[in-house]
Amino acid sequence: MAYVPPVDDLAFVLHDVLELERSGLPGAADLDRETTAAILGEAGRLAAEVLAPLNAVGDREGCRLENGVVVTATGFLAAWAALKAGGWTSLDADPAHGGQGMPHVVQTAVGEMFTAANMAFQMFAGLSHGAAGAIAAHGTAATKALYLPRLVAGDWTGTMQLTEPQCGTDLGLIATRAEPAADGSWRLSGTKIFISAGDHDLAENIVHLVLARTPGGGPGTRGLSLFIVPKFLPDALGRPGARNALAAVRLEHKMGIHASPTCEMRLDGATGWLVGERHKGMPAMFTMMNAARLWVGLQGLGQAVAAGQAAAGYARERLQGRAVRGPANPGGPADPLIVHPDVRRTLMDIRAFVEGARALALWTALLIDRDRAGTDPAAEGLVALMVPVVKGFLTDRSFAACVAAQQVWGGHGYIEDNGLAQFVRDARVAMIYEGANGIQALDLVGRKLPAEGGRHVLAFLALAKAAAAAAEPDFGAPLAAAAADLEAALAVLAAAGAKDPDDALAGATDFLHLMGHVALGLMWARIATAARAGLAAGRGERAFLEAKLVTGRHWMAREMPATALHLARIRAGGGTVMALAADAF
Amino acid sequence: MAYVPPVDDLAFVLHDVLELERSGLPGAADLDRETTAAILGEAGRLAAEVLAPLNAVGDREGCRLENGVVVTATGFLAAWAALKAGGWTSLDADPAHGGQGMPHVVQTAVGEMFTAANMAFQMFAGLSHGAAGAIAAHGTAATKALYLPRLVAGDWTGTMQLTEPQCGTDLGLIATRAEPAADGSWRLSGTKIFISAGDHDLAENIVHLVLARTPGGGPGTRGLSLFIVPKFLPDALGRPGARNALAAVRLEHKMGIHASPTCEMRLDGATGWLVGERHKGMPAMFTMMNAARLWVGLQGLGQAVAAGQAAAGYARERLQGRAVRGPANPGGPADPLIVHPDVRRTLMDIRAFVEGARALALWTALLIDRDRAGTDPAAEGLVALMVPVVKGFLTDRSFAACVAAQQVWGGHGYIEDNGLAQFVRDARVAMIYEGANGIQALDLVGRKLPAEGGRHVLAFLALAKAAAAAAEPDFGAPLAAAAADLEAALAVLAAAGAKDPDDALAGATDFLHLMGHVALGLMWARIATAARAGLAAGRGERAFLEAKLVTGRHWMAREMPATALHLARIRAGGGTVMALAADAF
Repeated sequence: MAYVPPVDDLAFVLHDVLELERSGLPGAADLDRETTAAILGEAGRLAAEVLAPLNAVGDREGCRLENGVVVTATGFLAAWAALKAGGWTSLDADPAHGGQGMPHVVQTAVGEMFTAANMAFQMFAGLSHGAAGAIAAHGTAATKALYLPRLVAGDWTGTMQLTEPQCGTDLGLIATRAEPAADGSWRLSGTKIFISAGDHDLAENIVHLVLARTPGGGPGTRGLSLFIVPKFLPDALGRPGARNALAAVRLEHKMGIHASPTCEMRLDGATGWLVGERHKGMPAMFTMMNAARLWVGLQGLGQAVAAGQAAAGYARERLQGRAVRGPANPGGPADPLIVHPDVRRTLMDIRAFVEGARALALWTALLIDRDRAGTDPAAEGLVALMVPVVKGFLTDRSFAACVAAQQVWGGHGYIEDNGLAQFVRDARVAMIYEGANGIQALDLVGRKLPAEGGRHVLAFLALAKAAAAAAEPDFGAPLAAAAADLEAALAVLAAAGAKDPDDALAGATDFLHLMGHVALGLMWARIATAARAGLAAGRGERAFLEAKLVTGRHWMAREMPATALHLARIRAGGGTVMALAADAF
Repeated sequence: MAYVPPVDDLAFVLHDVLELERSGLPGAADLDRETTAAILGEAGRLAAEVLAPLNAVGDREGCRLENGVVVTATGFLAAWAALKAGGWTSLDADPAHGGQGMPHVVQTAVGEMFTAANMAFQMFAGLSHGAAGAIAAHGTAATKALYLPRLVAGDWTGTMQLTEPQCGTDLGLIATRAEPAADGSWRLSGTKIFISAGDHDLAENIVHLVLARTPGGGPGTRGLSLFIVPKFLPDALGRPGARNALAAVRLEHKMGIHASPTCEMRLDGATGWLVGERHKGMPAMFTMMNAARLWVGLQGLGQAVAAGQAAAGYARERLQGRAVRGPANPGGPADPLIVHPDVRRTLMDIRAFVEGARALALWTALLIDRDRAGTDPAAEGLVALMVPVVKGFLTDRSFAACVAAQQVWGGHGYIEDNGLAQFVRDARVAMIYEGANGIQALDLVGRKLPAEGGRHVLAFLALAKAAAAAAEPDFGAPLAAAAADLEAALAVLAAAGAKDPDDALAGATDFLHLMGHVALGLMWARIATAARAGLAAGRGERAFLEAKLVTGRHWMAREMPATALHLARIRAGGGTVMALAADAF
């Protein structure tokens, strides 16, 4: 399946919508259009020419567990070498550890293309990035010096080991135990499941970050500590030495992302070292959660982008039926699918979602940068608020977009050889892992809304209202109406929460989607303003900017009224939800 | 995956909601609760004990094409024998051909269970049923005498051969040719694709119904005729004789329904016989379309039922987290998932959809019976109107229900071994085949609404308004509001259609979903009335009837407001949909 990197749109969002050079980030002034064009162009080429052609191969071949070692699909080893050689594993890492010090927002733009081209392949890099981030935040100087340069270079990769058979969301049930050894290291024993990239042949070592229970830590999540458990114990020179006592013992047979090995890991007294403080494993893990959840939102989005391209390409070429207003291709046996309003409606729905979602993901990434740089006191709260929305709303809607794109292909979309089914199957997992979307909704309503007296959501609401007031009517009016629905929903939730938490939580998923609509409406209002400014200044391609306005109006007219439906559901509360006895199901 | 046949709910819909005995159908007075209970109970047992255990087997093994013959999955042959032995292939067939003469609505109730238990297996029977129906409607007496008893007995099976590589929806592009032979038979040549059950080892012969082009028939669909092309040419005694010149040459590798062989068929001068009139192939095919599309709606629904059961079972047993109002299972390590409002909301959403959809499918089947019996002059128009809704709305929503059920299982839902992914993959095709759902929407808006001056949709609207007026307020008010939205949408479409058909058709899918909501609202109002009557009369199980009222209120409060969103989108029209040039995609 050919993938066309959306470099022009990424550049438009970075520079025209988010005004990267004027973002106040250290070094941002040097990130002009030429610089990002070079980065995006190179990354796009790798995505289109190296990663995308391997996407179907990986799906077909999957991974094999042979003699305790996971073998990746044909071509993945060479692709990993290309990723390393291009410096793509180190883009936003600290120069102190061999990184290039780019802002996270640039890494996010690049990441969308990589994950769109090959979600399963990008898993290896994404998990490494997360593990490196946790070590950077919580490791000692020696730990950082040992692990970070190798992770950043892509010579080693990382994993996150949380889940166990008896616990997914509820990490308080973790049973893996760590016992102290005489030399200050620990011995870990237990079984972890669903460990992505838990073993593979792309890197010379794998750095596992493992949540485990230490003696005296008490029950629940308070007793958990975080450990580094490398596959090969580093020797005195930091080279992979003796094999550690942990191994992949089984691969899961999954619906999608077949090329990403999902391992059951057995730890039999494996040697590990504490990262961060003892019994502070959960907070250490949470440090990385914003970036990880944003990344999963991006994974979903990437599949929607690629599937949407496939749908548009098919709709332009497949000849079937005649336009209702008369033949559009009178010389041919039939007209292309794209003449049919319902097909066009599908393509526009996907497009309007994808372009707004891209802006939301990049805006959130920029807020993470601004928070890290300490240049924007409101950034941290907005990030906290937006992360469950980006993860939950973007993955729900991206999956729906993949399904819609598959539908454009008719029966041919159901045939695996054509690649549409893979987008659907791969995108599906993004709704599940890194906190299932119901958990994102719970996090948003139960934790993020009430935080600091609701200050962050009120700040977001103010942004939406200001954008509505500044925007032209086709954008301003729907955004204002949606913002009013958001305000009403907040009042309903506050009242319900005080009376009966079940009542509020029954509306959590609807609230997440309501927020998602307002957030994309906010993005579209900003995009429209940027497009108008570009048109007025004669900057940028005219057709591109005019298409932005059409696509934005499509989103505003067709999607924004959904906030009223979500508000109605939130108002419906938990009565019918909780009324039946459990055994009535 | 255990499947629990919903025999009580099917009986409730048949007798309490639809009042089968008083339906005016010939022989309906004999169809009392005891009679249908025996039928439903036996069918449910076969579904649960024979078909459901083979569902995962079929998914895993698929079918094999070996030396030109398709081999089905382990156990399918024995299951087919059990289906025949139980008389399930002949349930609603004419006693003149060995059928049992049951109404279609009873066959539909049975069919829901079979397809819920094993959608791929039920394909064989469903296609046979369709082929037999076409022959019954259009065959000569001799043709019927030869083919129908064997199809009805399940000794032979049937197929429908329409699609070719260059045409799916647009059958006017069919290139398969039929040339007359001296003996009155025809010789057919061409390539057909996507032929379900095109070859297999369950039956001693396969009766293909093939659409082909005859000389002098003119272009487009007007030149098409329908032919019977048996795999083995019947000898003088009607036994399978010489092999005919058509064969499966390739199996598709599909996203789901792996156990149903999707064949590419090559016809190399295959012998066939005309069914119905020459150049009247399309109308002959259309005869069967209502039943076939209702059946596909049922396929979707079946998967939603089975997936919903799997989700509820997991939610009751999987321990994870604590209820927000305090532990519900204080003696255990955690509470079952079902205590969490967002999980309960998911289960209730699935349940409310499934129970309403079941009533809609059975109501539509009963209308087909009443139309055939000639006892209800309004039935034909209502069937024409409801069929695209049952096919399009039920399959869209059933797929969404399967996805939601999979979500309840978290990461374990993504693992193929647990069966949830199969429901999603199998249900997906029901949105595509037998007229993709966009085609259903087009059929509804472009053909069914304007038919006979809009008489049928106005009759439906009157039913909805009457039910709203008669229902208690929790049901009546939302239904009345939705009916008003439907009425407004009709006005918008009529005005748009007169001005610019693209404008109307851009809203077709939204109109289909709007109709679906009103139809399920109408069903829920009737269900509530029946439940109240049962409670007042002390008839039926109290908890069952009270749960109906709760579940119905859930649907009315949470789902019916969606009509306003669909109306807003219909009002948005085709402006942004059609604005961009095709090469802008």
